[in-house]
Amino acid sequence: MEDNTIIGKDIPRTDGRVKATGEAIYTDDIKLPGMLHGKLLRSPVAHARIVNIDVRKARALPGVKCIITGADTPKIKFGNWRLFPATQDEFPLAVDRVRFIGDEVAAVAAIDRETAREALELIKVEYEELPAVFDVDSATAKGAPVLHENSPSNISIDRKIQYGDIEKGFAESDYMHEDVFTVHAVSHAYLEPCSSVAQADIDGRITLWTSTQTPYIVQCLLAATLGLRENDVRVIKPYVGGGFGGKMELRPWEFCAAFMARKTGRPVKFTLTREEELACGRRRHAMKLHSKVGFKKDGTLVAKDLKILLDGGAYNSMGPTATFLCGNFGAMLYRYPNYRFFGQHVYTNKPPAGAMRGFGAPQSLFAAETQMNIAAKELGIDPIDIRIKNAMVTGDEIPDVATISSCGFIESLEEVAKMCDWKKKRKNLKNGKGLGVGCYSFISGGVFNWFNTQYPFSSAEIRAFADGTVHLLTMASDIGQGSDTALKQILAEELGLKMADIRLTAADTAMTPQADLGTWGSRVTLMAGNAVIDAARKIKEQLFGAVSAKFNLNVIFDMECRDGRVHAAGKPDRGMSFGDAVAFVQKTNRGEPLVARGSYTPRGKGLVSPAFSFGAQVAEVDVDKETGNVKVNKMWTAHDCGTVLNHMAVEGQLEGSIQMGLGYALSEQFVMDNGRTLNTTFLDYKMPHAMDMPPGESACIETYEPEGPMGAKEAGEGLASPTAPAIAEAVFHATGYRCKDLPITPEKILKGLGKLED
Amino acid sequence: MEDNTIIGKDIPRTDGRVKATGEAIYTDDIKLPGMLHGKLLRSPVAHARIVNIDVRKARALPGVKCIITGADTPKIKFGNWRLFPATQDEFPLAVDRVRFIGDEVAAVAAIDRETAREALELIKVEYEELPAVFDVDSATAKGAPVLHENSPSNISIDRKIQYGDIEKGFAESDYMHEDVFTVHAVSHAYLEPCSSVAQADIDGRITLWTSTQTPYIVQCLLAATLGLRENDVRVIKPYVGGGFGGKMELRPWEFCAAFMARKTGRPVKFTLTREEELACGRRRHAMKLHSKVGFKKDGTLVAKDLKILLDGGAYNSMGPTATFLCGNFGAMLYRYPNYRFFGQHVYTNKPPAGAMRGFGAPQSLFAAETQMNIAAKELGIDPIDIRIKNAMVTGDEIPDVATISSCGFIESLEEVAKMCDWKKKRKNLKNGKGLGVGCYSFISGGVFNWFNTQYPFSSAEIRAFADGTVHLLTMASDIGQGSDTALKQILAEELGLKMADIRLTAADTAMTPQADLGTWGSRVTLMAGNAVIDAARKIKEQLFGAVSAKFNLNVIFDMECRDGRVHAAGKPDRGMSFGDAVAFVQKTNRGEPLVARGSYTPRGKGLVSPAFSFGAQVAEVDVDKETGNVKVNKMWTAHDCGTVLNHMAVEGQLEGSIQMGLGYALSEQFVMDNGRTLNTTFLDYKMPHAMDMPPGESACIETYEPEGPMGAKEAGEGLASPTAPAIAEAVFHATGYRCKDLPITPEKILKGLGKLED
Repeated sequence: MEDNTIIGKDIPRTDGRVKATGEAIYTDDIKLPGMLHGKLLRSPVAHARIVNIDVRKARALPGVKCIITGADTPKIKFGNWRLFPATQDEFPLAVDRVRFIGDEVAAVAAIDRETAREALELIKVEYEELPAVFDVDSATAKGAPVLHENSPSNISIDRKIQYGDIEKGFAESDYMHEDVFTVHAVSHAYLEPCSSVAQADIDGRITLWTSTQTPYIVQCLLAATLGLRENDVRVIKPYVGGGFGGKMELRPWEFCAAFMARKTGRPVKFTLTREEELACGRRRHAMKLHSKVGFKKDGTLVAKDLKILLDGGAYNSMGPTATFLCGNFGAMLYRYPNYRFFGQHVYTNKPPAGAMRGFGAPQSLFAAETQMNIAAKELGIDPIDIRIKNAMVTGDEIPDVATISSCGFIESLEEVAKMCDWKKKRKNLKNGKGLGVGCYSFISGGVFNWFNTQYPFSSAEIRAFADGTVHLLTMASDIGQGSDTALKQILAEELGLKMADIRLTAADTAMTPQADLGTWGSRVTLMAGNAVIDAARKIKEQLFGAVSAKFNLNVIFDMECRDGRVHAAGKPDRGMSFGDAVAFVQKTNRGEPLVARGSYTPRGKGLVSPAFSFGAQVAEVDVDKETGNVKVNKMWTAHDCGTVLNHMAVEGQLEGSIQMGLGYALSEQFVMDNGRTLNTTFLDYKMPHAMDMPPGESACIETYEPEGPMGAKEAGEGLASPTAPAIAEAVFHATGYRCKDLPITPEKILKGLGKLED
Repeated sequence: MEDNTIIGKDIPRTDGRVKATGEAIYTDDIKLPGMLHGKLLRSPVAHARIVNIDVRKARALPGVKCIITGADTPKIKFGNWRLFPATQDEFPLAVDRVRFIGDEVAAVAAIDRETAREALELIKVEYEELPAVFDVDSATAKGAPVLHENSPSNISIDRKIQYGDIEKGFAESDYMHEDVFTVHAVSHAYLEPCSSVAQADIDGRITLWTSTQTPYIVQCLLAATLGLRENDVRVIKPYVGGGFGGKMELRPWEFCAAFMARKTGRPVKFTLTREEELACGRRRHAMKLHSKVGFKKDGTLVAKDLKILLDGGAYNSMGPTATFLCGNFGAMLYRYPNYRFFGQHVYTNKPPAGAMRGFGAPQSLFAAETQMNIAAKELGIDPIDIRIKNAMVTGDEIPDVATISSCGFIESLEEVAKMCDWKKKRKNLKNGKGLGVGCYSFISGGVFNWFNTQYPFSSAEIRAFADGTVHLLTMASDIGQGSDTALKQILAEELGLKMADIRLTAADTAMTPQADLGTWGSRVTLMAGNAVIDAARKIKEQLFGAVSAKFNLNVIFDMECRDGRVHAAGKPDRGMSFGDAVAFVQKTNRGEPLVARGSYTPRGKGLVSPAFSFGAQVAEVDVDKETGNVKVNKMWTAHDCGTVLNHMAVEGQLEGSIQMGLGYALSEQFVMDNGRTLNTTFLDYKMPHAMDMPPGESACIETYEPEGPMGAKEAGEGLASPTAPAIAEAVFHATGYRCKDLPITPEKILKGLGKLED
């Protein structure tokens, strides 16, 4: 990639300036004439039958224009797993029953937010409380209260993976270790709370502006729950202030905004408060992981048996996928000749867990990486050496699960060791200081078609113009991760144009080509990028033909688009400007515009992902043995994301991942009391701040992923996983306390060191 | 067309309800955050050199954010006739010179309209006045002041048409008649004054919402005058409250809004006042027509020699096209074996004339039809009989000009005669009552590519969905004439769907397919309609293939889309629903959406139009010989618009045409004083009101136009022409006064009757 002009450079984000100046329009910035403001009435109890809802007083409040309850709606259940309709377990508004504190019971639309809020207080709901369960063990115990009748065991879905012979594997092991880990729920804590504005046209068609990662999914599910045709709903994604997995489903307020917009004939806006987001928004799955591993004396992995109970909360949400993925991630990074996984997704009377950055990997890899550190310690092998010994390499296959078509894992381990001077530092650190390593692998988009889309997974349309510009249309959704910039870069590189030559229209289900599955699973750069390249190459073929004809080029000549020109490869004078070439193509088609469509759907890559990233991270900590306080002194990261499309963007992803990883490891958690979230503000919910961020060093191990656009693969999500196990190992290295129960709080450390009683 | 389900029915306008409820968003309804309001400073003198402009005081006024003059702009001339750049004679803001009262000199953008208006008064412009000319005779006289240096004779363009042998024709004539007609300027008087809102993005790209008939033309010319690339400008047409030809060019306020939006970084809106519209807006060309016709004794036309001077005002605007067209229309309706035309477009120091409904035909046909009535009288032949004798028929050709592929003219004459009981009524009317006939022919879009577009003349994209809906995208512009409804009807009929199954996106140059030349010359139904059919047939071919395969149909089977299904022709059970067929096509393409593009560019149809409408109209008047007041008692119209797509829409066009025709004939005129328009409000500018409308009867003579979509052709513009000559003849029939100088005012009638001195 030596001669790339745009790829691999530090390219500023194309949305940077409008965000910095405040010009970027987010959903809550949208104000439409006559717009009403919506509010949701939520259940104050964790589990109950709704006996009666009396809205008469609320309806009489001046300024209230519409109140709906589940009874007013078509009562159609939704859920992302359309492929298995039985998993679709959620109503937009509760029908007869509530299952968690925060479950949506009614919605009000009024002339302003204050009136809507006041009306909520006037709605009288009579509940008949039911026994509730708040953890996976209670929920799966005999005689536990049942949340959903078609899941009498409270297990909504399970998954098995098995290959090799697990019993034989353990029999052949010299050393085995068995642990139970518990990991906790955390918040996405995106800075933009969820917001949606719906407008109904005179024919009842809906336009919904919404802060979402998945416009297409919202379009389909919203249409279904409203009883409309898919294309009677148009979803537009304005600028989005972060999602991290928390905005990839249809949400009750999207339904309520649309339903009430149709009912009132006026636009309706819902914007959640931070309190709502923290009290009852989606969150990362808490899990209970039971893992047993077997090694040879020399550190060679032989077998792993992993059982996970996922605490899904009251509804499936993205839980089925999490159940799949945590089993897949348990088999990653190392060669497990014998592997068994059994995962169960458990209903509890808590806010539903959804997808969150890393999605199954932070939990699964916290257990796996901690066990690797335990084994290294107990077998007397250096933690990095034992990893290198077992590391996956390019060409590895996990039966039915994945083919590893590029892998820079060993190089990442070697590089991170070099960067931090691992062996020397590990030996020399003293006085409460410690060094630990954690690793990750992650997917670059999912293969398994749980949404049951009928369309390509990603699509792109390119319109090329005689003025030398192109218009790229794609339903791909930039939610702050920078995919708009990446897709423009890919297109500019492919067509030899400048970033400023490209106009982008994205994430509007009525205008951009069907379809794109949205932003999740680190799929956008690879999948939408491949769709862009597919379309760009069709454009190029036409340009090449035109230039070849115009310049009477020998048919054996290779051609290229470069520096705004189309010409014989290496011969810039034998060709013409991009715009002139477009005009010439148009002439050959008697005026028809030059337009091409491209798409990408992964095939032949197993059930998980077309490509996998890898990386290793080292944390140095300083533990105050008196207070239990952990200060992270420095982080070193070496990671393989294939071709680096934009160094600046990759660095941004890494820094964000470390921030979230720190919070996950050390400070963030939901404090719950019988299903009620107690810490519902950012004063109580402890995210690391800018001042908490340690200095760091990083290196990109550039491999070339054959399935990726220009060799690129995932760069933003896998890095959410290694930080917690690296810090846990560093704390152990510093103190001798081994944490298997995130987060690593001062209290746990002091208890672990025997300085505080249990 | 017996079995059409949607075509030919009374289909309510799809925009009717939002317009009736006030929900339709017109340009002036658009309010953007931080938006500034613009005002134009206009020349108070008819012809002058600008010596100096001092904006310092205005700039100092609090609330003024931007002031520009011609000196600040790139000084790039524009004009619609891109094919001949020499005709592009207009600057967005005057550079050194003003040429009419109202010429745009400077623009102000301020925080509100009042401040902008106040700032205008603080701008000091020093003019050095130049001699001015206000009529075509003075302007073409020797030594007349010159308006544009590259047109020293003040004639900007001329056109000749000649076929047969004109001298021989007159030599062979038994009877000749020679007249000079003068016709006046009138206003489009669209109810929505011009309005534009421009927004610049952070990269300087422009989005312009504007009340226009021609988004594509505005896009191209705006980009050119700003020095931008075509696709750095996006033009969106909101709902438009009428255009009638007056909104089909780039206008100074569009440039100023865009230029100042880039300069200030804030959106800028301009909305003209009615006073501006009437004082200096575009208007219909005043003309002086010199026409000589020769007949045989039996009424057979032998020759016509037509000379026209067009009063173009200060700039070309659409004058070159008017010059072409009035010569073409002079050769229409009847078979002129020998014909000569010479037209000259003359600059005068008045507001420029532009395109207006009928565009060259009302003027040319007023002369032609009046001469036909004179000849009938003088040869002693019934006015309808003499027309039938000479009427064009299907298959006629005018050399180099037109091929008449369908013509229901004779049928129209016969039908209108029958409807009004012509011969009997004509004989029996007494006491100041009179009956007169006038006829028209009109184009269905233009062929000559004066805009020099590189794209098809019209385009359409159709996206078909598995939910049974389709999305139609087209740049065609509904400006109130109902083309959105017509295009949906055509598509619904072609695909066997309901109107409600179609979503339409139109007239957005960034989103809808390149390109469409806009709304003028009655081109939209025919050209955009043909593009829709072209795309629809490509969709159908794919659906037919899928259904044929799925049902294993014999290859000889014809197929059809009907009633929401796709099936073997006449066998509804051998097929499936439209949506299922789409889904099946998608499967065969491995998920790719079903999308097709279509286009239309007229070829092989001569230089004028692909198709011609025809019609005849009779007016009965009651003239008060004491006051000269003319009351129109009733109108009868029979017209051939090919297949009637929507009776209700055709009727609406007819009624609007009669209203405009009445005003043109009797009451509307600009009262001018040395280049200054004196009647600048609707109190002084006398349009017929609802109470002035006579009752009427009408009949559609349905022919099948082979070049038209489903046989349709023009139905809304030609009818602007016959009313004035019909009324003039009726007045003559009633009083013996023959008017050759529109409008037919009471004063002229009394003078003509010798009751008032000249």
